[in-house]
Amino acid sequence: MTPIEVGILGATGMVGQQFIALLAKHPWFKVTWVGASERSAGKAYCDAAAWRLAAPLADEIAKLQVNAAAPGNAPQLCFSGLDSSVAGDIERAFAEAGHVIVTNSRNYRMTPTVPLLIPEVNGDHLALLDAQGAAMGWKGRIVTNPNCAAVVLALALAPLRQFGLTKTMITTLQAISGAGYPGVASWDILANIIPHIGGGEEEKVEIETKKILGRMQPEAIADHPVVISATTTRVPVHNGHTASVSIALDHKPEPAAIIDAWNSFKGEPQTMGLPSAPPQPIVYLTQPNRPQPALDVNRDGGMTVTVGRLRTCPVLDYKFIALGHNTIRGAAGAAILNAELMHRLGRL
Amino acid sequence: MTPIEVGILGATGMVGQQFIALLAKHPWFKVTWVGASERSAGKAYCDAAAWRLAAPLADEIAKLQVNAAAPGNAPQLCFSGLDSSVAGDIERAFAEAGHVIVTNSRNYRMTPTVPLLIPEVNGDHLALLDAQGAAMGWKGRIVTNPNCAAVVLALALAPLRQFGLTKTMITTLQAISGAGYPGVASWDILANIIPHIGGGEEEKVEIETKKILGRMQPEAIADHPVVISATTTRVPVHNGHTASVSIALDHKPEPAAIIDAWNSFKGEPQTMGLPSAPPQPIVYLTQPNRPQPALDVNRDGGMTVTVGRLRTCPVLDYKFIALGHNTIRGAAGAAILNAELMHRLGRL
Amino acid sequence: MTPIEVGILGATGMVGQQFIALLAKHPWFKVTWVGASERSAGKAYCDAAAWRLAAPLADEIAKLQVNAAAPGNAPQLCFSGLDSSVAGDIERAFAEAGHVIVTNSRNYRMTPTVPLLIPEVNGDHLALLDAQGAAMGWKGRIVTNPNCAAVVLALALAPLRQFGLTKTMITTLQAISGAGYPGVASWDILANIIPHIGGGEEEKVEIETKKILGRMQPEAIADHPVVISATTTRVPVHNGHTASVSIALDHKPEPAAIIDAWNSFKGEPQTMGLPSAPPQPIVYLTQPNRPQPALDVNRDGGMTVTVGRLRTCPVLDYKFIALGHNTIRGAAGAAILNAELMHRLGRL
Amino acid sequence: MTPIEVGILGATGMVGQQFIALLAKHPWFKVTWVGASERSAGKAYCDAAAWRLAAPLADEIAKLQVNAAAPGNAPQLCFSGLDSSVAGDIERAFAEAGHVIVTNSRNYRMTPTVPLLIPEVNGDHLALLDAQGAAMGWKGRIVTNPNCAAVVLALALAPLRQFGLTKTMITTLQAISGAGYPGVASWDILANIIPHIGGGEEEKVEIETKKILGRMQPEAIADHPVVISATTTRVPVHNGHTASVSIALDHKPEPAAIIDAWNSFKGEPQTMGLPSAPPQPIVYLTQPNRPQPALDVNRDGGMTVTVGRLRTCPVLDYKFIALGHNTIRGAAGAAILNAELMHRLGRL
Repeated sequence: MTPIEVGILGATGMVGQQFIALLAKHPWFKVTWVGASERSAGKAYCDAAAWRLAAPLADEIAKLQVNAAAPGNAPQLCFSGLDSSVAGDIERAFAEAGHVIVTNSRNYRMTPTVPLLIPEVNGDHLALLDAQGAAMGWKGRIVTNPNCAAVVLALALAPLRQFGLTKTMITTLQAISGAGYPGVASWDILANIIPHIGGGEEEKVEIETKKILGRMQPEAIADHPVVISATTTRVPVHNGHTASVSIALDHKPEPAAIIDAWNSFKGEPQTMGLPSAPPQPIVYLTQPNRPQPALDVNRDGGMTVTVGRLRTCPVLDYKFIALGHNTIRGAAGAAILNAELMHRLGRL
Repeated sequence: MTPIEVGILGATGMVGQQFIALLAKHPWFKVTWVGASERSAGKAYCDAAAWRLAAPLADEIAKLQVNAAAPGNAPQLCFSGLDSSVAGDIERAFAEAGHVIVTNSRNYRMTPTVPLLIPEVNGDHLALLDAQGAAMGWKGRIVTNPNCAAVVLALALAPLRQFGLTKTMITTLQAISGAGYPGVASWDILANIIPHIGGGEEEKVEIETKKILGRMQPEAIADHPVVISATTTRVPVHNGHTASVSIALDHKPEPAAIIDAWNSFKGEPQTMGLPSAPPQPIVYLTQPNRPQPALDVNRDGGMTVTVGRLRTCPVLDYKFIALGHNTIRGAAGAAILNAELMHRLGRL
Repeated sequence: MTPIEVGILGATGMVGQQFIALLAKHPWFKVTWVGASERSAGKAYCDAAAWRLAAPLADEIAKLQVNAAAPGNAPQLCFSGLDSSVAGDIERAFAEAGHVIVTNSRNYRMTPTVPLLIPEVNGDHLALLDAQGAAMGWKGRIVTNPNCAAVVLALALAPLRQFGLTKTMITTLQAISGAGYPGVASWDILANIIPHIGGGEEEKVEIETKKILGRMQPEAIADHPVVISATTTRVPVHNGHTASVSIALDHKPEPAAIIDAWNSFKGEPQTMGLPSAPPQPIVYLTQPNRPQPALDVNRDGGMTVTVGRLRTCPVLDYKFIALGHNTIRGAAGAAILNAELMHRLGRL
Repeated sequence: MTPIEVGILGATGMVGQQFIALLAKHPWFKVTWVGASERSAGKAYCDAAAWRLAAPLADEIAKLQVNAAAPGNAPQLCFSGLDSSVAGDIERAFAEAGHVIVTNSRNYRMTPTVPLLIPEVNGDHLALLDAQGAAMGWKGRIVTNPNCAAVVLALALAPLRQFGLTKTMITTLQAISGAGYPGVASWDILANIIPHIGGGEEEKVEIETKKILGRMQPEAIADHPVVISATTTRVPVHNGHTASVSIALDHKPEPAAIIDAWNSFKGEPQTMGLPSAPPQPIVYLTQPNRPQPALDVNRDGGMTVTVGRLRTCPVLDYKFIALGHNTIRGAAGAAILNAELMHRLGRL
């Protein structure tokens, strides 16, 4: 198979580097174009970016010349890890020019005709793309993945909709990589907790989750009616957002039914055998002190959400712990899985 | 004033060391007796205990000879930081022998005639002592302070009872010192989160808080009816338990009324001017990213609970963040304040 | 090829778990026997050991029944990760009973007829085994690998012997996994430095390195004459011992000659293509702020020692930084490479 | 006594905040003027600076209006915590305008007529000020304190000059606060070691120490002849630079003589009873695992350098561990002690 050439917008940042690392041996996609700020344009990628991942930077990427983040010579398909301060304009310019942008940035997530996609949960939302071009005036398309905390919650909740999910309370303990680079100053977070994440993080978790779990309608999504209350905090962990979650379920299932719903949950990525799909998107761990970032975050390449400690909640019905890799399942890996699904469905 | 001689049970452990540090310059109490395990008995304190606090160990304590943890030559008043695996038998032996034991151990906290005391919140619960001797067959008495996470919650909730408190959901991020020494292995917690604390921590937070907030009756406490759901986790922080709390309040007060209730909350320690009493037991911080352990845990010698981020909760009514020093307000400092109140009330 | 059955002594500890993880997919060796303390004997491995590695525990190991650490039904070849407090007696018992013990424990490292082996450096020291049986009265044999800090130093120095190596000064910054489990208490090391490692760590680095670099003689090793001064400290890092090293070299080579000596260094593991051999045992990194544990410790499965920052030393001749994975290249991986070399040389 | 009004240059940075915290209750100096960048000028200090210390910000400072960092209405005496990228020009402008600048910035440390001062070590270097005005063309004066790692080394070495100090090898483990704020990104240093500090840190330690220990001559300092080799690394510690040091001493003293030289070392700050002077500038700790940042860095308000683990060095003569608080003894506290000495000597 001829590889599909792809570009990376925001290629020098934390998420951009994660895109490059994850695509290094991808069976379908090949990075042939990297875009970044004007300051980096013209340099070799290895000179423009301080590589900060333990995974080695492939020589052929290291030598790529960085382009300004503008359409023109970029491939048809571009992944975006752009900072939200610039993503709005740049991604629109690419979409207007006919590119397909599969982005981790938040700017278009709540736009009615833009899918906010988790392939296992709401692959049918891709049908929004049929209306997107006309609604937005774009020749190309934009598809987004959720906020890195919302994706963990939405995946954990998706199999529970069948039990009459009405309320969710979540407190997150979020890793520093979620803040990008340089992100959180070490003086602020070493051996400390910061009980606040800027940029409307709590609202994002609340509203994005309702759209993700919502029902497809011709030109928009009908939000799922679950009421969500989110508190988000920052903790001194490299990767992995941990969440303490309580839920109300109208049908009052037995715990075994919930655990079975998680472990048996599958979507199109699994049935289609997409390259980045984990064998089981949600895994329930039975040990009393799991999931933990240090032990569980990289399960199946960081694409599996692990849950544990399901028990009765005196205030709502049940409570549990969930964990997901915020820069893989919650960012670059999420976008790549989105593109894989789109490719297989003929939407690239 | 002649100092009151006191003993420390469990003097070599983490809480025992904190007792010694806090009492080093106490205006009323003077440590003249230290008790520990048989293995330490007969040694000088500085040889029996590996001192682990930054506060220096006073020479006169360093030279004290360690006693076995048995009554006999111990002072009338003893503070206890014993491990719960041995505290039950030892504290009972002291109480039978006529000592007053002011303890941080959990063993007798839920015993009906034993006060579970936070002086600002439920000083009137000391009246249980009138019935304790007959009920338990003790010449002496035992008074307990709460679990280190429960004390933070109970203090934050106490001023809110007037608003018709009915439900509380709490997720804690607890410091490693709460596990004693050696406690949590560094391999397990460095740059990690452990979403579970053993020994029934969540149940302790739920049931102790209800007793603390309860109403005094002749020979027992009528639990406060608030329904509590607790999730407790361990984080890589030295001192300070942070809590994400949501509450339901029947009277639906304005946020300003809640903040005012916190900031104006005072109890007997403040009106009596007890030596360890903070000027204001609960302080509301207005900055959006506070309280934080690194910045706020030592406020007023670690005896103040700080709260912040009060905001509407979509599921219950309000949510906020609370923080307290777990080995001071949540352990040794708590017990010392208890003893100060008892002394002033003539109950020593 | 029929797999060679192997046993693991001290199978439940930190190094024992690392043995199991590294051997999970080994092409030659298959773990069929696990030995631990009496307390664990008779239990299934997964019940006896709290698995603490992110790598999953294979089902077939999980179900193995743990044996007491005594010869009898153990395979001919056993790897040992026993604690030094018990390794002396147990390993001798196995050797007397005819087993080949390839051990990470320190007890026999300095015994004259016991090889202290780094296959790339001193594979010829295996010839000591010819005299070992008679000298020790053993039917079997014992082969050791170095202390986890000594192995980093010895590998970095081995290619420099040709330049007239006379003096070495080393200060290490050692990871917590080097202390086993539970090892260092989190209270002691979180956001802290402990400038001391117990058990004679500095002496081990000094004397073991001289033996490793020494010259084979019929029944013992003639120590290398280099004078070594070691200071060892503990730092809050999971895996990877970093070292600041200064050296005196009589021949005063150019820096390029030193770097070339490192990068071109190879030994029997590379020429034989042993399964655990890294392609290049020592890699010089040119970036000014490398090597770093977070980025470099897992290079080539943790079997490569990385060096960097070579520069002139005003007191001796040159200085540099070195880094190695202490539980892989410095413990379990080292022993496995030793056994691979012995197998290929017909010494198993 | 009427307080001496002082200004703080670079008042919003990490060192500037430390100046303000340390001067909050100073018996002689009162902060009445704060200077920062144009961006902050005109704002109230509490709005211009994100206060990052646990010590509370005094109300009277919080309300001060920030000035641009230019002479004019500034007090005669100004402390400077300016970043070195701007300190050169600004400090010169103040000196030309007649101010006395007591600075932590590095820009003028190696200027021949500028004292590089540690009051206990080289108070006589203040005599350079007699020649400074003419040499530099300044009406005012500039006095500097050393780099935060050099001050620890210079203090530890000063009492050893009497033993014929000829060589020093040092490897530092430096705290993150030494990099200012935001300084080191948490992604880079959490559970990691960075074996390099930019900006010529190693050279600063080498050359500054030689000047500090040098001999006063009319218009310059004759460097001490000790040969120094420094390696500097960054570790995940908030405050406190730890150093592993080896030394060659021509006179070959006994260890007891060295320890006595440290413990009995005193200078003018102690004999004059300066407000910020620690009772004993260097304290030798006898425990085998000390000094440690977590336990020892705040000794005597952070102005004491602690040393420990003195033992024979196989390569040079002796080796030991030293520790000092980098933003107090190594920055703000150092400058304040300098100003106290100058005031007492009539040089303000």
